[in-house]
Amino acid sequence: MRLRNKPWAKDYITEQAHIVESDPAAWKGSWQEKFPSEQPLYVEVGSGKGRFVNELAQQNPQVNVIGIEMSESVIVSGVEKAVEEAKSNLILLQEDVNYLTDFFEKGEIDRLYINFTDPWPKNRHAKRRLTHEGFLQKYEEVIKREAEIHFKTDNQGLFEYSLESLTSYGFQLQNVSLNLHESGMKNNIMTEYEEKFFRKGMRIYRLEARLHHNE
Amino acid sequence: MRLRNKPWAKDYITEQAHIVESDPAAWKGSWQEKFPSEQPLYVEVGSGKGRFVNELAQQNPQVNVIGIEMSESVIVSGVEKAVEEAKSNLILLQEDVNYLTDFFEKGEIDRLYINFTDPWPKNRHAKRRLTHEGFLQKYEEVIKREAEIHFKTDNQGLFEYSLESLTSYGFQLQNVSLNLHESGMKNNIMTEYEEKFFRKGMRIYRLEARLHHNE
Repeated sequence: MRLRNKPWAKDYITEQAHIVESDPAAWKGSWQEKFPSEQPLYVEVGSGKGRFVNELAQQNPQVNVIGIEMSESVIVSGVEKAVEEAKSNLILLQEDVNYLTDFFEKGEIDRLYINFTDPWPKNRHAKRRLTHEGFLQKYEEVIKREAEIHFKTDNQGLFEYSLESLTSYGFQLQNVSLNLHESGMKNNIMTEYEEKFFRKGMRIYRLEARLHHNE
Repeated sequence: MRLRNKPWAKDYITEQAHIVESDPAAWKGSWQEKFPSEQPLYVEVGSGKGRFVNELAQQNPQVNVIGIEMSESVIVSGVEKAVEEAKSNLILLQEDVNYLTDFFEKGEIDRLYINFTDPWPKNRHAKRRLTHEGFLQKYEEVIKREAEIHFKTDNQGLFEYSLESLTSYGFQLQNVSLNLHESGMKNNIMTEYEEKFFRKGMRIYRLEARLHHNE
């Protein structure tokens, strides 16, 4: 993503304290109290410009949504959308996903989304991929036992890597699609990236993963 | 595959008793005695015209190979190749994979190949897919604990189904390729189908699966 310097972003984000929570660790274990209704909590890691979380919250009033994006100049677009549409079931965090377990209690998250994140194609950067084992450990800690991880990408290499990484960790897969927009999936919410790739006729890969428990 | 009636096939196969074993159940647990050397046993289920098993055996003299194909008029091509090349490490079985556990002892197989098998696209035929849970149970019974299943197909739907079926069963994946001939895999042995699809520029999907054991 091209980063534009937005000198006004920092102040703007600070002003929208009802949307962007600046001290997420303080809410660890009690996020439901921050939303008007107690309902399933869906979290997107690496939420970018926030189109996905905004639409997810809009289309699903029966769900609470949190988007996590580290970059100030990127997350600000999502904040603007959220302000315009005045949704009460969306919170954004300008934070590093590495500290996910500081922000959420064990089993606090009902579903986790990973959409079009940086593929980090070089092997020496594998640890930065959001489907690397190190991140999966953090996800396992904060998601419910039966929670699903929903993952989409246009990047073939990242998808191949993620299939291996997720299943080696013990995740089982469902609703796999190797060409999402040909598979006729309903209720698919497109991210900014996805729409761009889709228009170019590129394949989008998608999967849902759930931890395999031996009962 | 277009089936041609080959009235001579039955007699020809019977004559090649050193290549086509007509009573595989009699060798259950003692296949190694049937080969000149005791070495890892690789089995292909649904081996079709037998190009893959022939090349596998040729390129890997340190491995014993068995190909299983039910159709008389199809397997006969593989028998002809095997006769021409006089390989001692290849045996063919004209049998139904459904009876796999009648032919092999627990843990007798070191690696199992599934290549370009019938996708059976209709849901009501799912049980016939060679990656259906019912077949996976049979494979688990006859492969070694750490054995790999190597699976290739050009069929997107079958690959998606297999990702779900294998991982739900508890398999983990490695060396996944969503476009095999672009990934530059070395030592890839092409089947008849694969070469045809490859020439048409179609994608070939491939994975290796291994059962996940909690140690």
